[in-house]
Formats: sequence, structure tokens, C-alpha cells
Amino acid sequence: MTQLQILKLPLEQQEEVANAQATENRTKRAISEGAEKHMHVPYQCLDHGMVKLVDYMGNDAAVVQGARVSYGKGTKAINEDKGLINYLLRNLHTTPFELCEIKLHVKMPVFVARQWIRHRTANVNEYSARYSILDGEFYVPETQHVAPQSASNAQGREADGFSETDIKFIQEFIEEHGEETYQKYLMLLAEPNTYNEEEFDLEVGLARELSRMILPMNIYTQMYWKIDVHNLMHFLKLRADSHAQYEIRVFANTMCAILQDWMPHTYEAFENYIKDANSISKQGTDFLVSLLDNLSSKSDFDSIVHATFAEYNFSKSEKADLEAMLRLPSAGNQ
Amino acid sequence: MTQLQILKLPLEQQEEVANAQATENRTKRAISEGAEKHMHVPYQCLDHGMVKLVDYMGNDAAVVQGARVSYGKGTKAINEDKGLINYLLRNLHTTPFELCEIKLHVKMPVFVARQWIRHRTANVNEYSARYSILDGEFYVPETQHVAPQSASNAQGREADGFSETDIKFIQEFIEEHGEETYQKYLMLLAEPNTYNEEEFDLEVGLARELSRMILPMNIYTQMYWKIDVHNLMHFLKLRADSHAQYEIRVFANTMCAILQDWMPHTYEAFENYIKDANSISKQGTDFLVSLLDNLSSKSDFDSIVHATFAEYNFSKSEKADLEAMLRLPSAGNQ
Amino acid sequence: MTQLQILKLPLEQQEEVANAQATENRTKRAISEGAEKHMHVPYQCLDHGMVKLVDYMGNDAAVVQGARVSYGKGTKAINEDKGLINYLLRNLHTTPFELCEIKLHVKMPVFVARQWIRHRTANVNEYSARYSILDGEFYVPETQHVAPQSASNAQGREADGFSETDIKFIQEFIEEHGEETYQKYLMLLAEPNTYNEEEFDLEVGLARELSRMILPMNIYTQMYWKIDVHNLMHFLKLRADSHAQYEIRVFANTMCAILQDWMPHTYEAFENYIKDANSISKQGTDFLVSLLDNLSSKSDFDSIVHATFAEYNFSKSEKADLEAMLRLPSAGNQ
Amino acid sequence: MTQLQILKLPLEQQEEVANAQATENRTKRAISEGAEKHMHVPYQCLDHGMVKLVDYMGNDAAVVQGARVSYGKGTKAINEDKGLINYLLRNLHTTPFELCEIKLHVKMPVFVARQWIRHRTANVNEYSARYSILDGEFYVPETQHVAPQSASNAQGREADGFSETDIKFIQEFIEEHGEETYQKYLMLLAEPNTYNEEEFDLEVGLARELSRMILPMNIYTQMYWKIDVHNLMHFLKLRADSHAQYEIRVFANTMCAILQDWMPHTYEAFENYIKDANSISKQGTDFLVSLLDNLSSKSDFDSIVHATFAEYNFSKSEKADLEAMLRLPSAGNQ
Repeated sequence: MTQLQILKLPLEQQEEVANAQATENRTKRAISEGAEKHMHVPYQCLDHGMVKLVDYMGNDAAVVQGARVSYGKGTKAINEDKGLINYLLRNLHTTPFELCEIKLHVKMPVFVARQWIRHRTANVNEYSARYSILDGEFYVPETQHVAPQSASNAQGREADGFSETDIKFIQEFIEEHGEETYQKYLMLLAEPNTYNEEEFDLEVGLARELSRMILPMNIYTQMYWKIDVHNLMHFLKLRADSHAQYEIRVFANTMCAILQDWMPHTYEAFENYIKDANSISKQGTDFLVSLLDNLSSKSDFDSIVHATFAEYNFSKSEKADLEAMLRLPSAGNQ
Repeated sequence: MTQLQILKLPLEQQEEVANAQATENRTKRAISEGAEKHMHVPYQCLDHGMVKLVDYMGNDAAVVQGARVSYGKGTKAINEDKGLINYLLRNLHTTPFELCEIKLHVKMPVFVARQWIRHRTANVNEYSARYSILDGEFYVPETQHVAPQSASNAQGREADGFSETDIKFIQEFIEEHGEETYQKYLMLLAEPNTYNEEEFDLEVGLARELSRMILPMNIYTQMYWKIDVHNLMHFLKLRADSHAQYEIRVFANTMCAILQDWMPHTYEAFENYIKDANSISKQGTDFLVSLLDNLSSKSDFDSIVHATFAEYNFSKSEKADLEAMLRLPSAGNQ
Repeated sequence: MTQLQILKLPLEQQEEVANAQATENRTKRAISEGAEKHMHVPYQCLDHGMVKLVDYMGNDAAVVQGARVSYGKGTKAINEDKGLINYLLRNLHTTPFELCEIKLHVKMPVFVARQWIRHRTANVNEYSARYSILDGEFYVPETQHVAPQSASNAQGREADGFSETDIKFIQEFIEEHGEETYQKYLMLLAEPNTYNEEEFDLEVGLARELSRMILPMNIYTQMYWKIDVHNLMHFLKLRADSHAQYEIRVFANTMCAILQDWMPHTYEAFENYIKDANSISKQGTDFLVSLLDNLSSKSDFDSIVHATFAEYNFSKSEKADLEAMLRLPSAGNQ
Repeated sequence: MTQLQILKLPLEQQEEVANAQATENRTKRAISEGAEKHMHVPYQCLDHGMVKLVDYMGNDAAVVQGARVSYGKGTKAINEDKGLINYLLRNLHTTPFELCEIKLHVKMPVFVARQWIRHRTANVNEYSARYSILDGEFYVPETQHVAPQSASNAQGREADGFSETDIKFIQEFIEEHGEETYQKYLMLLAEPNTYNEEEFDLEVGLARELSRMILPMNIYTQMYWKIDVHNLMHFLKLRADSHAQYEIRVFANTMCAILQDWMPHTYEAFENYIKDANSISKQGTDFLVSLLDNLSSKSDFDSIVHATFAEYNFSKSEKADLEAMLRLPSAGNQ
């Protein structure tokens, strides 16, 4: 699991955060101790980015409570919260997870925000560069993340391939480009005392909604972002995945760590049944069945299967599903 | 505003509710005292229906906080929460209201649930009659709501028109139909000792997913329902409207009362700018302008306009908008 | 694949359908010959239900065209439409499938409509029983679908268990309940000459929005339903699944048949990678890996694996994914 | 209405467009002659941007057909398509408009795309700069749109205020910034022969997903964008509004022109009841009523009202609504 690190804030914001963390309200609502400890803590992502838990609704018990409304008197059998949560996610009964909600204050480069915002089932208030002047913070990748274009994967990077000189050059190049462009931005805005006025000096500034358009996409923006847990898990499946761009993965991993403390049973089921699960096509399944059939001539096949199952702690129904899928001999024993 | 009334619950549920209400958790999250006092209270709607606040996220201040992320340093001018909330709703800047969320436990007749569920931007877990056996509760309209088909409005009722005998007949007719059908339902399910087994007696019951299909649409169902405040206000605009069917309006009015206590500034702005506002078409606006122009020949027109404005406490920008829309002479004075 | 059957319509509707089918418009839009042949044909589902293709947008090529906008100059490698469609679905790149849309006229019992409408990402216009009087058509299950409650699955049926007498009784019981209730409905509406007026006779009818509430949930309703192909496939995965209630599965299967003709490559990929694919949990994957590892001591394990792969025609990347997932020895050979 | 202008395309794309426009398919689907004439025509927006109609579903008649499913036998009264469409929009019965769909190929600067994508109820495939190299096209505002920050409106521009020299400077400044940054981008990508290799020369290029992050937000991107007509009208109300940023308004106005030809009745109703309609708050309505009451002492008030109504051609119900809202004396005469 990701090691969380706290973002260094300017003094006046530190105070604001400290005040928020010292809050102690009384409520009749469900709480999660695991979430409370993360409330208002600005976790660092990339060089200047942040994920901060601002509010949450519900917990593992709220998922169970929602599911039980659907099942009515019929749920006596599934009497453990953890078992029910596993059952729900394994069978794609995802609506009870929509009954929990999370609100985050996040800060990320614009190119990351552009991927992020493609998840439509969320509520967003983003900083408006039409309305206000952006701060001059730009993302510059750390040394180990400055990597060449992958030859095999059009949308990926090679593990390595740059010399130290190259990396240093690229980092400085990106950093300087940010700084220079920010100077130009302030100049277009005609912000006093922010740039060399000998070069050029507009008496009035160009409209903010126009000036901002020269800014590069590694400038940081920020937003409030609110989403339910079903859609959060979908986001995390895609964005914590190894195919996601590293720069958004950092944020997804931080959110995974928060979710794990907030709703531990849900997170465990999510990892097992969604995040790290595999989808096998019909043809892939046929292949597996055929492979096992081909191997089954081995005299001790049955006992190998039996012994292997013994190493795992599947629920009865999950074992049955696997046996049915793989058409294993013991399926008949259920 | 609707007078809220508490639903009479069976003893064991009363205890459950009392326990929930006695909860006192500590949290670093924002709370609303107005919402806390409604938490877990089952408000009666219709004869057996209910609206119960189960959880909430945010309050008036959270709307302001969300809006301020968008405006960044630019919001110094709009420095009062209430004024900002008015400004936001008047200008359809609705995203900050999406940052607040409400979760309700609701119980309503199926025909009401069918209208309700058409609002798609919400999270729902409904009681499943595939999975469990429904309780035998059926909606029977109160005397003053048993009304004939409206002659002028295809989807409405006349104010009155039935004799007392008619009304009584209709009520008993509906009540008996519910009871009889419920007996048939139990019989199909082969639930022991619930009906006259001489008539017919299945040894095993018909599947629940089939048996339920004879039940009438005034049977009560229940669900957990979660929605953000922007979409809640849209729901309330349509469903608390006089054109909405009375039976869903009762629920909408109850939710209005809860929203008003939870987020008083938001509710006040909602009433003024959305719920009780009017939309005037382009042509309607032209008419109004023309009407006022026609009336303006009156020697004291300007002073009448001036005096009328003086009776109202519009914000400067709202007054300017009205003057511009109505092309009133004082518009130039701004 | 489902055998499609045409619903018998009343004469005047037959003519309307025939006219629609005889339409021959000219268009610059993409068409699908496979979809055109289904246009306006009312396919029967259950006893009185229907799925009728009213309009469609796009085809397999439109998916490819949409994907190519994303990939820009980078797609030279993936140069076959079918291969690209497989690639997209296998890797959950689902947005290009949202670029195709289908509009259906569907007719189903209310209890089926209630499951259907839970899919929120669709556009719906349903017949309004507030506004108009419903027709007296009720679903009665065919003999082979009248089945007892499943003992093991709370929301399922047993394969069989009823005597012929039981089945006949149940069918007649449901049919009569529909007819009787419909008579009561007409009586409440005070529709002239539709019921025995000696029993009771209201001079004016009860409002339609109230009268309808005694109707049972197996009465037929109808709607226009429009959805994009990504969300349609999600609907079909859930509702054509063996765990879905039989009565909605019939509709899903009919839609599968239409989709297959409309977008054959998409449908084939859908079946292989979504509909009939399996999700294996992380733990399930570990089990499989362990099982194969345990079996691999067999001297000819590698050649068995090799020979089994030879039976299947996986793309290079899918084979690599399977090998990686199962940690098979040949993975290194890629 | 906006004067549409065709975008100058490179020769090979011109041919592609000409081929698409020459398409003549036969279909049983509804068509719109007004839409057909726009099919595949690349309308210019800003300097390099474009709106191109790629596909559409439905027309005015399809809205009416969808509405009639809801109303069933009850719609005999509303027998004209145009009247029904007016009625629907005036009363916010918006679901029938969701039954029509439009698919566009659009090209716009990234800062416009960022506003655009906030409309979540749409389907999108955008060009991926992770996957492919972006073209070097940058938006530079035309002379009349280079304007200073508005003093009164934080998110607006002044009408004018720049000297010709200032404007020219700003335009060249923005243009040069685009060109220079694009050179840097190619250099980071190590694209051969595209920049001065003496300055610096990476042997392998930085990953595309990283190189793109120095690009400014006035670079052009493109996407396929698909939306239903209800949500399109919501988009157009907000983005064709005078408060929207000029650069997105240009696109909205182009779409208005296409919608007007595609669905003329819908567009006319949209303009009157939504786009150019006004919302008057409860308090604003009270003011109007009070104003008219104050003016009504005038001896000929009633005849002025009567004469003014005579100038307008309101439907009976819209007139009644206006009279009720303004509490005008003639309201009783309805």
C-alpha cells in the first residue's frame, strides 16, 4: 500500500488545516474512525499536488444496511457484514456501494485533470482561470519518471533509456518553460511588478479568460471532487491500473489508501474481486477448461485439484463457481 | 410549510429508531444542527408511507466552500454566504449544490415509486419482491383526495364531485381489493396459515418473482434513496409543483421541510429563484415590455415604477436584470 | 441464438407497420443492412410483449471511426476493423461504443418495466396511466415457466415441481385475477358499457391517476427506449444472464439477436469478452496459478500447454495476457 | 442566425469529405432534409476550429411520436406537431427530446474543450495526446476579440480598450508562443528534422504522454461528440448565452444553425421557451404584479391590457398562465 506523505503548505493554510482537524462535532450520523483520521490532511501527490479528504458519507455498515433494504426479510442467511460485502461485489450487485459518498479537495496538473474529468458520474467544482489568476506551479517529473517513449506501447514509457544528462536537461527544460510562460501570462494580465516591464508593458491587462490560454498543461489546477463508492471503485480500477499514466496513478493510489482505512471490508473485496481480478473471455475459459482436461489424464489429477483448493479459503459458492467454470470433477460434490 | 407528523411504527422498530436517535458520534466533518434534529425520525406520508433522514453530507457553508474553489482569489467581493448562495442559484451556477448529498429511507406505494424512479441522477436500493415477501400494506386515499377525473386536465382531478356515499364506496372498494389480492398472493406463495386452505392449496409455493405480479400498484414498497442537492431541488421543483400527482407531492413537501432546516439559505434561494419562480418566454417578455410601454404614457409612470421598486429589496444586479428585461426607464440610472 | 417471432397485431396497426417498413428514404448517414431488415418489425416477447427497432445510429464502422479519432495518427498498426473492435472491448475502451445508439419500441409487463428502468443511462418515454386508460392485457406465464420457489436461491425458481393440475390452476388464477381487476378498473373509471352496472355505478369516474392503482403488476405497459451500445451491452450482460428473471431475459435475448445483425463484429466481441466472459478474483487467479504449478511436474506439461494453445486462435497480446496471468512458462517466449 | 462558413481543409481531407457527402444510402429510418444538407460539411469556428455533422437520429416528428407513446389515447386534442412541441417545452416535458440524437466531429482549442467536457450527459472520443502527436495549430483571437479584462465582471472582457499596437502585439505574442512551444514539443519528442538540432538533441524522444504537457491550452484538439437533443438544448442555452466565453459561443451558435435546419419546430420552441426566455423569481413576480396593480388605477388599464394581448398570438393556455401569473383582470374570462 502507498506510503502517504503530507504536503508542505504555506503557513496560513497550515493553520486553516490545523483548525479543521481540531474540529469536534457531534452527530447522529454513522462515522468511520478510519476516515476521521484522514479528515483535512493534505496528502502530497507528485511535486505540488494533493488529495485531501473533506467529507464522507457512510461506511461498511451503511453498504450492508442498504443491501438489507433490498433483501428485506430474506437476508437471514447472509449474516456477516464482511461476507455480504464480498457477495455483493463478486456478483456485481453494486448499488449498495452507491450509498456511500466521498468528497475530496484535489490539486493536480491540468493534463491529469483532463483524464480525471472523463469520469462523468462525479460532482466537480474546479478553479476557474476565467475568474481568477492561476498560481505559478508546474509539474516537473522526478528523475525516475523522466522516460522515453515506449517502442511497443503507443501510450506508454520505456523503463529507462535516458542518460543522467538527458534527464537533467529535460527537467530543467520543462521547469524553465513553466517559469517563462508564467512570466508571459503575468505580462498579458498586466499584473504590476511581476515581470520586466521594459520588454513590453500593456497598460491594461488582457482578459483573464484569454491570457490563461498560453499556459501549459502541466500547470496545477484544483477542484472539489465528490463521487459515490461504486463509481470511485470504477475510477480506481482504471486509474490505479498499471496501464494508467503514472501521474494519475499516484492520485489513485492515495485514494486507495484512504478508502482502505475508511471502508476496510469494501476495500478488501474491491482488491480481490475488481482491482486485481482478471476477466477471462469465453474463448480463454474454453482454453483453460481444455488445458485442465488435457492435464487430467495424470493419475493424481483429482487429488492435486483437491489439495490446491485446500490451500484457499473460498466461500462455498465461489468454489462452486470456479469448479463450474473450469468444469472440474469435484463440481458434482457440491 | 408542511406540518411534519411522525409515523407510528411497530414496537421493535420504535426501539431501533430510538437507538439511532440516541447516537452521539464525534466527527471532524461539517454538521447541520437543523438536519441533526431530523435524523432517523420517520415522518409519515400518506397512510403508511414515510420519509426518514438517514444521512447527509454538507450544509450551506459547504456550498459556499465549493463555490470559492471555483472563484479562487476572485470572490472577495461576494463576501456573505447568503448573498453568494442567492447569486449562484439566480445564475444557474448549480455545481456547488452538487457537493451536498442526502440519504433517505422512504416508503411509498409502487405507483409513486414508479414516478420517483424516473429521476435518474440518484442512487437507489429498493426492496426486492423477487427476494422477499412484501408486507400487506396498501394505499387508500383519504376522503378529501378521492376525486373524479378532471374534465379539462387529462392527468388531473376535479376539486370535488363525489357524494359521501361514492367516496366511502371507493375507499372500501380499494381497501378490499388490496386485502383480497394479498390473500391470493399468500396463497400462491403457499405461505402456511395465511388464507383459507379449503379454496385451494398448493403444496409448494409459486416462485416469489412470479407471485408478486398479481399485486396492485398501491402496495407499499420502500427504498434507500440518495441524491445531491442540485438534483434534489430539481426533483422538488417538479414533484412539489401543483401539477404533480398529490400522492408524490406529499413526499416532496416533507423533503422540502427537511431541506429547509438542513440548509436554510439554500432553501430560501430555491423557493425564490426556482420553486416559485416563473419562466417567461421570449414572446411573453415582449408582451410585458409592450404592455408597460403602453402604460407608460401615464404622467406618473416613472414615479410608480420607482415607488414599486422601493417596496422590494432586490440586490443591485437583480434589479438591473429586471429593468433590462422590462426595459424600464430607470435602467439607465444604474 | 434466439428464434425471433413476429407479434400478431390488430389490423390497423399491421397496416401502420407495413407502411413504416415500406419506407425508403435517402440519406448521407451510415447504415447497417443487418439493422434495416429489422426496422419496424414487432418481435414477440412473452405473450403480449414486443421489441421493435424504431431507429438506430451507427454501425461497426462508426465504432472504428470514433476510436480512430482518439488514436489519431497512431493507429496504423491496428488496421482491421474487427481486430480493433476486439482490442477495444478486451481492454475496456468502451467510449467508442457509446457513439452508436438504438431506439426501440418495447411493450412489457410492469414488473419487468420496473427492473428495466433501473438502468439509468437510457432515454425513456413510457405510456402514462395518469393520462390515458391502459389496455387490459396481462402476462400469464407459459406452462414451462410456472415454477415453484427455488429452495437454494432466494430470487429464483426450481426447474420443476408442480403437477399439471397445479400449473393449470395457477395460470387460470392469474388470468382471472387480471380480468376481474380490469373490470374493477373500468368500473372505477365509470367507463360506460364495460361492466355490470347493477353491482355499482359511479356517475363520474374516479381520476385515472387513482383508478390505475388497483391494477396488478403483470399488466402490460409500453415505452420508447433509447440507449447507446456501451450501455446496451451492460444491460444485456446483466439481463441476458441466467441469473436474470426469465421474463426480462426474453427481451434481452431478442435485443441480442438484433444487435448481432446490426453490428456483427461488436456482437461477437461482446459475447466473447463480456457476455460469456468470466471474472476471476485475485484469489481465484492465485488458485489457478498454483493448480497449474502443481500439475506442471508432469514431464510433458510444456508440450500440453503448447498443444492446447495451438487449438485456439488468440491474438498475440491476448495470448501474452493469459500466459502472464497464469504464469505459464511460454510467457518468456513472447 | 449565424452565417455558416466552410473550413478550408487540406486536399486529401477535402476528397474524403466530398466522398462522404456524395454518399446516398437507402434507409427505413426517419430522415430530416434540413439535416441531410449539413451532413459531413466542416463548418469553420474560430481560426482553425470546426463543427461537422457526422450523424443524427430523429427529427421533429420523432419527438411527437415519442410524446404520443406517453399520452396514449389521450392526445387527440393536441393534434398538431408544432403545437405539441411548443406545449412540451413550455411545460418542461423534456423526455421526448431525449429521443433524438446528434453526433458531431468538433475541433476546438483545449481551453474550450475543458468547458465543453463539463457537460457530462454526452458521449465523447477525444484525440489522445498520450497516443499520438498533436498538430501544431493554435488559436489566436481575431482583432475584435482581443479585449481587456472587464472591470465589472470577473469572468468577462471589456468591449474595447486596446490600441491597435497593443492588439497586434498581443496577437503576435500569442502566435509566437504557440510556434516556439511547438518546436520545443517536437524537440522533446526527438522528431527528426523539425527543429534546430544544434540547440539540443535527444537521441530518443521523451514519452508522448509527458512531452505534451508543455503545450499551451490554445492548441487545437478534436473529438467526436454525441448528445441527445434535450441535453444539447441545455448546452446551447448555457453556451450560446451572452455570458459564455466568446470562444465557445462560436461553436454553440454554429450548432444552433444546424439544429434549426434539422428540427425547425423544436428550434423555434427552444428559442422562445428556453434560450431567450427569462426566469422571474417569486419576488420578481410579486414586484410585477404589484407594479401592474399600481398602474391599474388608470381609467383605461383594462383596454390597454386587452389591446396589448391582441398584438400577440399566445395559445389559450399560455395566455391564461400569463394572466394568472400577473393576476390580470381578464384571467377570470378564460
